Amino acid sequence: MTSAWKNRVQFNESSGGELELWFDERLILKHESSSPMIYLGVGHESVEMYRGNFDIEDYLEERVALRHIEWEETAESVNLHLKPYAGSSFTLQASIQLYNDQLRIDFTPSEPVYNRFWLRVSASEEEAVYGCGEQLSYFNMRGQNFPLWTSEPGVGRNKSTYTTFLADVKDRAGGDYYNTNYPQPTFISTEKYICHVATTAYAEFNFKNQAWHELQAWEIPEAVWFETGESYKDLTERVTEHFGRPPELPDWTYEGIWLGVQGGTDQVQHKLDRARQKGLKVGALWCQDWQGKRVTSFGKRLMWNWKWNPEMYPGLDEKVKEWKSEGVRFLGYINPYVAIDGDLYEEASQKGYVALTADGHDYIVDFGEFYCGVVDFTNPAAYEWYKSVIKDEMIDFGMDGWMADFGEYLPSDVHLYNGESAMIMHNAWPAIWAKVNHDAVKEAGRWGDIVYFMRAGFTGIQGTCPLLWAGDQSVNWSMDDGLASVIPGALSAGMSGCGLHHSDIGGYTSLHGNKRPKELLLRWLDMAVFTPVIRTHEGNRPDDCFQFDDDEESLEHFVDMTNIYTALAPYTKAVVQETAERGIPAQRPLFMEYEADEVAYQLQYEYMYGPDLLVAPVHDENVQDWTVYLPEDKWVHLWTGKAYEGAGEVTVEAPIGQPPVFYRAESAYASLFASLPKQKVYSS
Amino acid sequence: MTSAWKNRVQFNESSGGELELWFDERLILKHESSSPMIYLGVGHESVEMYRGNFDIEDYLEERVALRHIEWEETAESVNLHLKPYAGSSFTLQASIQLYNDQLRIDFTPSEPVYNRFWLRVSASEEEAVYGCGEQLSYFNMRGQNFPLWTSEPGVGRNKSTYTTFLADVKDRAGGDYYNTNYPQPTFISTEKYICHVATTAYAEFNFKNQAWHELQAWEIPEAVWFETGESYKDLTERVTEHFGRPPELPDWTYEGIWLGVQGGTDQVQHKLDRARQKGLKVGALWCQDWQGKRVTSFGKRLMWNWKWNPEMYPGLDEKVKEWKSEGVRFLGYINPYVAIDGDLYEEASQKGYVALTADGHDYIVDFGEFYCGVVDFTNPAAYEWYKSVIKDEMIDFGMDGWMADFGEYLPSDVHLYNGESAMIMHNAWPAIWAKVNHDAVKEAGRWGDIVYFMRAGFTGIQGTCPLLWAGDQSVNWSMDDGLASVIPGALSAGMSGCGLHHSDIGGYTSLHGNKRPKELLLRWLDMAVFTPVIRTHEGNRPDDCFQFDDDEESLEHFVDMTNIYTALAPYTKAVVQETAERGIPAQRPLFMEYEADEVAYQLQYEYMYGPDLLVAPVHDENVQDWTVYLPEDKWVHLWTGKAYEGAGEVTVEAPIGQPPVFYRAESAYASLFASLPKQKVYSS
Repeated sequence: MTSAWKNRVQFNESSGGELELWFDERLILKHESSSPMIYLGVGHESVEMYRGNFDIEDYLEERVALRHIEWEETAESVNLHLKPYAGSSFTLQASIQLYNDQLRIDFTPSEPVYNRFWLRVSASEEEAVYGCGEQLSYFNMRGQNFPLWTSEPGVGRNKSTYTTFLADVKDRAGGDYYNTNYPQPTFISTEKYICHVATTAYAEFNFKNQAWHELQAWEIPEAVWFETGESYKDLTERVTEHFGRPPELPDWTYEGIWLGVQGGTDQVQHKLDRARQKGLKVGALWCQDWQGKRVTSFGKRLMWNWKWNPEMYPGLDEKVKEWKSEGVRFLGYINPYVAIDGDLYEEASQKGYVALTADGHDYIVDFGEFYCGVVDFTNPAAYEWYKSVIKDEMIDFGMDGWMADFGEYLPSDVHLYNGESAMIMHNAWPAIWAKVNHDAVKEAGRWGDIVYFMRAGFTGIQGTCPLLWAGDQSVNWSMDDGLASVIPGALSAGMSGCGLHHSDIGGYTSLHGNKRPKELLLRWLDMAVFTPVIRTHEGNRPDDCFQFDDDEESLEHFVDMTNIYTALAPYTKAVVQETAERGIPAQRPLFMEYEADEVAYQLQYEYMYGPDLLVAPVHDENVQDWTVYLPEDKWVHLWTGKAYEGAGEVTVEAPIGQPPVFYRAESAYASLFASLPKQKVYSS
Repeated sequence: MTSAWKNRVQFNESSGGELELWFDERLILKHESSSPMIYLGVGHESVEMYRGNFDIEDYLEERVALRHIEWEETAESVNLHLKPYAGSSFTLQASIQLYNDQLRIDFTPSEPVYNRFWLRVSASEEEAVYGCGEQLSYFNMRGQNFPLWTSEPGVGRNKSTYTTFLADVKDRAGGDYYNTNYPQPTFISTEKYICHVATTAYAEFNFKNQAWHELQAWEIPEAVWFETGESYKDLTERVTEHFGRPPELPDWTYEGIWLGVQGGTDQVQHKLDRARQKGLKVGALWCQDWQGKRVTSFGKRLMWNWKWNPEMYPGLDEKVKEWKSEGVRFLGYINPYVAIDGDLYEEASQKGYVALTADGHDYIVDFGEFYCGVVDFTNPAAYEWYKSVIKDEMIDFGMDGWMADFGEYLPSDVHLYNGESAMIMHNAWPAIWAKVNHDAVKEAGRWGDIVYFMRAGFTGIQGTCPLLWAGDQSVNWSMDDGLASVIPGALSAGMSGCGLHHSDIGGYTSLHGNKRPKELLLRWLDMAVFTPVIRTHEGNRPDDCFQFDDDEESLEHFVDMTNIYTALAPYTKAVVQETAERGIPAQRPLFMEYEADEVAYQLQYEYMYGPDLLVAPVHDENVQDWTVYLPEDKWVHLWTGKAYEGAGEVTVEAPIGQPPVFYRAESAYASLFASLPKQKVYSS
């Protein structure tokens, strides 16, 4: 064994058959006959998808404890041979190695008997855990079980709300606390280690037990690895060393708001003119309907045939150039499906690029009153073709970015070109979809300049997706699906290595009586200013959503807050640079900056924006003031300049336009921060 | 081996290790290495009770296939030694014997390692299964999984209804298709056998698989037995041979309606006077509030101190005699809990008759804004004492019957006198509660004369409870919790050996905006006339429920339909006599009389009432006519005398007062049936 191994890895064996694995003085695994570290099993799942919502049941036929361990030491590894009992012909080999800085356990079963795997990772009672992709209801996941399966995030996401009830009854779409577009089998523990399970299978991470975390996967994973760190910044740096980091956002990003507008060339020009006349700095126009739209009972939906629609957007090819010359970029929209009534589908189908049913027909997926084929990215030719669609129809058209939507809808029974089970490929799909976009942009030489943004994710998007957005919040104040839910979403994605995050300003989903009130839109903007990108969305039913230009007061508020956003750019750029270079998330939990503060570990509705800004967004309606927890430091309230010192709760006035934000008195950016309130031209 | 064994039991062993057990030419068990017949496991349940509603989760740690079988033949039995693998020190002995007419398998584990048990009983694709106590949503249980745990049945009982949503959110009380007051681990298969699992532990019977039924119990059960029969009547006769049969109902039962009225002596007398003036035949007054009442947000609740309340019911002791002399019996109410503000609780607590918490205090149960102790019937002294309460306070007071309510609320963590786990005693409790009543009545020499009626049940109540009632339906038309649900309830209870059933006329639960309409009350009465007992209930919120005497038309309808009920008595008595003597249920599925009719096996909203009446209650609102399936026979429509012949659907006019009922033209009671319409005095 190497000396590094000897210094860092320790096995303790007791005469009673107990085995402990310590790594950098952390108890990682503990095997006792009453609590074996690994169980294997045989399950028979039933998976039903309805428009991206999944009913998943597992009939668990066997779950077998691997109680018996035989030990073998080689030059590079310790190999454990785990068996249900001493004489069993079945063996799971767990080969434990130090690989770079990782403690890596590779698993090799002697026979393909089992399709269920559980690993118990040792836990302490006070431990907290974060990550698992983007989690919208719980930042600290301790005490809950988290199914990890990319899907629609749910409407309401809380079975005790009427919105969720209606969404469930009408569309099977209500969701629950764990539903997310972006799951990932990776977490960071307050014992200061990373744990990652190398699998794309359905997984559940169960953090309910006092003594262990139980990590389940619906296959025997290739490997599980652990890596320790000195600090939480160190840990996110290490996470992104493995999974990748985004480039810095291009400078044009910071030049103004990205206006989500639609309806055709004239309509968009009109909205742009009015906004600019008022003084709104517009960095980009985001027109998701550049390829046309259709109307369904859900709301206005897009055409899903990824080509400029000149009937709806006459002269757009020239307009894009004109706008760009005026400093306004053009952003579009694409997703990995092609509507069956479009010519791209026709081409894909003819060439055999569409994923198939068991009997060899194109697998047609219901997206809600219209139907699509799934482009089969496991077919290299289809992958190439879709890249060329992005290059030819979008990049060459002059786009500087787009929403790369969806990725969660791979049906679990689809037949893929590469022969892999769709149960294994389902979770991988968002990462492959990110890679298609990444490769197209990279090959066009535009990586770091073009910005696409995704809601779906999985292991690996860290390096292939420049920007996350938080998916489809309801246009309301609910904790699990409204404005508030974006914050734990950003924090957990950040701990998972996706450090650049933003959201639809005002939220998206207006269903079952939910209509977006003006107050929600303005509060959402107030929060968004302290994220890397500010972008509006008209919502699925624009007529039921208050819009940025629905009255003068709102438009003026957008002018003022966008001014603050652009004025903050020097700081934001520095923060984003740190994300790009080291993987440290732009929006980060308080404990990442204040490790000693015990309270900080339980907060999920306030965050540090970079090292120097503390942001506690107002996420309730009719609020006059807001109570904020401040860790031990010298703080200045952004709007009043009032100084605070020491740890504890403070209550500040928090009218619209003055989101509770504090800066560190000793920040190098203190004078920039102090100047921000003066950026407002309409109010002060 | 006996010759009976040789004739009836057959083992087939294949060289591939496959084992089949055939009994009377039915394949009962099949063991293959890919589908072993028995699995054992270790589970850790978490059980939370809130007012009789249970959240039950099982963390299944191990589930082990017993793949290895060793065989031993003795003079009386075949003993199978089942092991996880050949060399395992653990053995489950399954001792298979012919015991009277039963194929009985006794289980003995070599060590107490496992607390979960699954047995796969062979099934055929077309097979249907019935029973499992009283099932209100599915009569044929094939295709569903049925948790068997006595509890509140739920309000709404269907997660897609708004009533259930509100009940869940406000009181955790919505329930689901399987929730029932009366579960029982017994079913009858269309392969014409009975299967019973001898356990009182939590159980689940899973009928979802094509090839087997999987019977789960949260202990290794003492035994599982099978018994075959020639016909479904033969099978219910055999079921009741084991579990008991009720006595015939006393003649006074048939003399009129049991009026559920309350509010004190004057109020009751007033209601009785008005009803009798109108000509209503009243068989009994049922006054649940004889012991006083309290008002909670749920509605009017009773005092739960089981003694005459002379403040509320002055002179009741004399009134009871007076009413009886006029042919009107007096019925009361009791349940197995004592409210902590009553003197019975005080006495029970002092004497140590109340079940305890882990730290030795009285276990106090929340019944909804008031609190009770649980009388610990496992303490023989407490059992005796409660019997004496029934004898002294109820029988000696002059009651001819009562509602023996509840029995489902034994908390899973209560400490009992007999030292048994409450997880094991919970399901047993309703049967013990029935036995307390039974013994009190029997010792008073009044068995077969006094009638008490229960909603809770378990294995054994067949012989100790004279009459079931269907529990607390919502006062609406919902299939899972309204009028309709009573019918599969009666049929499944009947297949489980409880052949006498009735329900609250008009339903009970008025919550979350549900109010009982007049039409529902009258339709419910129309159905009830064709059950052994007709009894009204004012509901939990009488002011939100239409009552029998709320207008003249309704009162007249009650007079007319009660006349039909009393006129039908000669037939009803004969039907009930068959239940008492042979266990054949009064309300029975069509296939019990028409075995060859394939359609009959799928019907759960029409039934045979005895051998000669076919009843298809109207269970929808605003109905003018009703479609009824008739099996192959000669039928006469009760109200029009119109003759029908042959199998198929017919549609008849079905106004209120003319429930769709047909009689067999060749019935010995044909002239009685033909005379029924003439019994109406107010309408015809």
